[in-house]
Amino acid sequence: MTVAVLSTGTELTRGELLNTNARWLADALTELGFDVAELETVGDDRESLRDALVRLGAAHDAVVCTGGLGPTTDDLTTSVVGEVLGVPLVRDADSFETIRAMLERAGRTMAESNAKQADFPRGARVLPNHRGTAPGFSVTLGRALAFFLPGVPSEMEPMFEASVAPELRALPRRATHQIRLKTFGLAESAINDRLRGIEAARGVTLGYRASLPEIEVKILASGEGARERAVEAAGAVRALLGDAVYGEGATSFPAAILAELEARGATLALAESCTGGLIAELLTRVPGASRTFLGGVFAYANAVKTTFVGVDPLLLERHGAVSAEVASAMAEGARSRFGSSIALAVTGIAGPDGGSAEKPVGLVHFAVASAAGVVTKEARYRGTRNDVRMRAAFGGLALVRKELLTE
Amino acid sequence: MTVAVLSTGTELTRGELLNTNARWLADALTELGFDVAELETVGDDRESLRDALVRLGAAHDAVVCTGGLGPTTDDLTTSVVGEVLGVPLVRDADSFETIRAMLERAGRTMAESNAKQADFPRGARVLPNHRGTAPGFSVTLGRALAFFLPGVPSEMEPMFEASVAPELRALPRRATHQIRLKTFGLAESAINDRLRGIEAARGVTLGYRASLPEIEVKILASGEGARERAVEAAGAVRALLGDAVYGEGATSFPAAILAELEARGATLALAESCTGGLIAELLTRVPGASRTFLGGVFAYANAVKTTFVGVDPLLLERHGAVSAEVASAMAEGARSRFGSSIALAVTGIAGPDGGSAEKPVGLVHFAVASAAGVVTKEARYRGTRNDVRMRAAFGGLALVRKELLTE
Repeated sequence: MTVAVLSTGTELTRGELLNTNARWLADALTELGFDVAELETVGDDRESLRDALVRLGAAHDAVVCTGGLGPTTDDLTTSVVGEVLGVPLVRDADSFETIRAMLERAGRTMAESNAKQADFPRGARVLPNHRGTAPGFSVTLGRALAFFLPGVPSEMEPMFEASVAPELRALPRRATHQIRLKTFGLAESAINDRLRGIEAARGVTLGYRASLPEIEVKILASGEGARERAVEAAGAVRALLGDAVYGEGATSFPAAILAELEARGATLALAESCTGGLIAELLTRVPGASRTFLGGVFAYANAVKTTFVGVDPLLLERHGAVSAEVASAMAEGARSRFGSSIALAVTGIAGPDGGSAEKPVGLVHFAVASAAGVVTKEARYRGTRNDVRMRAAFGGLALVRKELLTE
Repeated sequence: MTVAVLSTGTELTRGELLNTNARWLADALTELGFDVAELETVGDDRESLRDALVRLGAAHDAVVCTGGLGPTTDDLTTSVVGEVLGVPLVRDADSFETIRAMLERAGRTMAESNAKQADFPRGARVLPNHRGTAPGFSVTLGRALAFFLPGVPSEMEPMFEASVAPELRALPRRATHQIRLKTFGLAESAINDRLRGIEAARGVTLGYRASLPEIEVKILASGEGARERAVEAAGAVRALLGDAVYGEGATSFPAAILAELEARGATLALAESCTGGLIAELLTRVPGASRTFLGGVFAYANAVKTTFVGVDPLLLERHGAVSAEVASAMAEGARSRFGSSIALAVTGIAGPDGGSAEKPVGLVHFAVASAAGVVTKEARYRGTRNDVRMRAAFGGLALVRKELLTE
């Protein structure tokens, strides 16, 4: 059993759009227990599309195709599928009525280009679209069960879950169970080293998804007893990676920290310099962040560090803005002025300019102030300006987490 | 002339990694004047790789392949290319020495797995890698000129620019000229409507790349007089889109605003509520932001709005935090306390919870304070929490830009 994903659209072959659909589908199909053999992409061109459909239908057991179902003349998929199958397109009365009603609710009248979206190759099964006008459909193509879905992710993903996944689950495939552990604080090579041998010993496959600086470890077990093996392997991975594992599934590092704060009834404030709002932004992305995150100051200029979080100008003069002393003063000042139980301060040199031999680009000082006092940390990060800022943001949040875990 | 991109790696076919290389190459090849016919992706599997290489080499004039050149047993590309060509792999003494020296500088000794990276199919031309250990190579494969590059973007991109683009420029291709106009403030459908007919009238192709809420308009001209046609079409597009065009090429909206501030000797401060650091983060991503961006406060809690930017508690009680009155007070307070020439305040309801009938999720109030006084703006955004926050961040920056342009 192999499956293929076919993405269509000249916006993809011209490099105007990143193909997030193919990745989403590859992930979903792998999790269902299939071997995804290839991810093919062709432009809005009859010949390319025909060649790809014929080839993939002959080579695989299932094909999932996205795009080309819209109302414009660029949207060729349905017509080319009809041509490949040698059948005419026939209008589906139910789909026509659904599209008409949807357009009416939006105050629009139905044009022939919209009506075209209710046409399908004779014999196709229609896959309803609850989020947009273009229904999908499925046919048998060569030896493959083939599914045709819209290219808009917010329409494609629910259609896959509702109409495609149930059909695919009926195909012979590996029973699988997957667990995703989210980690921060260990490099991919370090994780690799620590987990060496786990795959063979536990009968699982490990996958790594780095969205730097975080790394997700996917534990995939197949066949009989998949669930038990995955759970046991996840326990072994947690033991080997220790506190670097901060959660499981769809959580994020900032969300995990907000949850730890909330569980302890703690509140957080920030004083950011080189991260310039990035830590606040990562935290406020999480719905409900305002329950524990009171606010913060981004203090680029020294005068701002003094005015807003009360850093002594003499301290700034003596140690410089990028120092453990100033980080401590910023954290204490933020904790007192915001009235939070914990405050994090970050000051550093993000680059690309502005470093010196003594204080190079990438140098970052952190401080966390709490009722227990102040802890500081120094780090030297490599990479571009944005690498340094992102690592510093996560490094700062990690220091808050460490405080919470050791309290 | 058609070209294909082949990406290899099981991390791609399993959906662990988003294929940014294929998009980058598709964009670069389109800009060079080639028709990119397909973007194919296969896993680290000899048979899939062999089938793809044979097929693409027979179908296209050029193939650019990434991945599989590393030192591990998963890295099969070089060996499979040798097999397809029917030639042995031979060790390249220069590459061997370069890799050895590079590892030595990093304090490592050369293992056989590293030495393997100096092996190439007999007759291949070696493409040097200045950023990593894996050199690339090129061969003739079927009717195609085929290039093999590492999968790491920071190694692949400079190798393409230095070694692949010059060879491709020698192939017959369309003379092309491309101009990228960056826009903010008009929806893609509105841009489409305004630019209807431009392609036919000016002999250019338009492409849109939405990275919401920004939209880039690509103007591509091919053939004789491409440059002149692209420049004239760009002038026509600018005239039709007006102030929505904020720049050309690789700039970003925050960078354009920082440049406008700097050109006027102005400085900026922020008071953010619902955007919670996002505006600061967008600005500080730009190197040199500290020259004009003094700092900001993210004030979720009402008490913070009072303590840090001096918003009168009675005002908060009377109008609520999400109001034009409080936005104005935040902007004036931030301008005075930071001592900036301009201050932007944003207060709104990002959701998903917390709205009311009178003040629904998505309602955002903006204020910009300057020497000329305070201007306010109200917007109602749709979408998820992050959509609302991103639109609010750009909406706020747009208000600053409007102030600067009308001063």
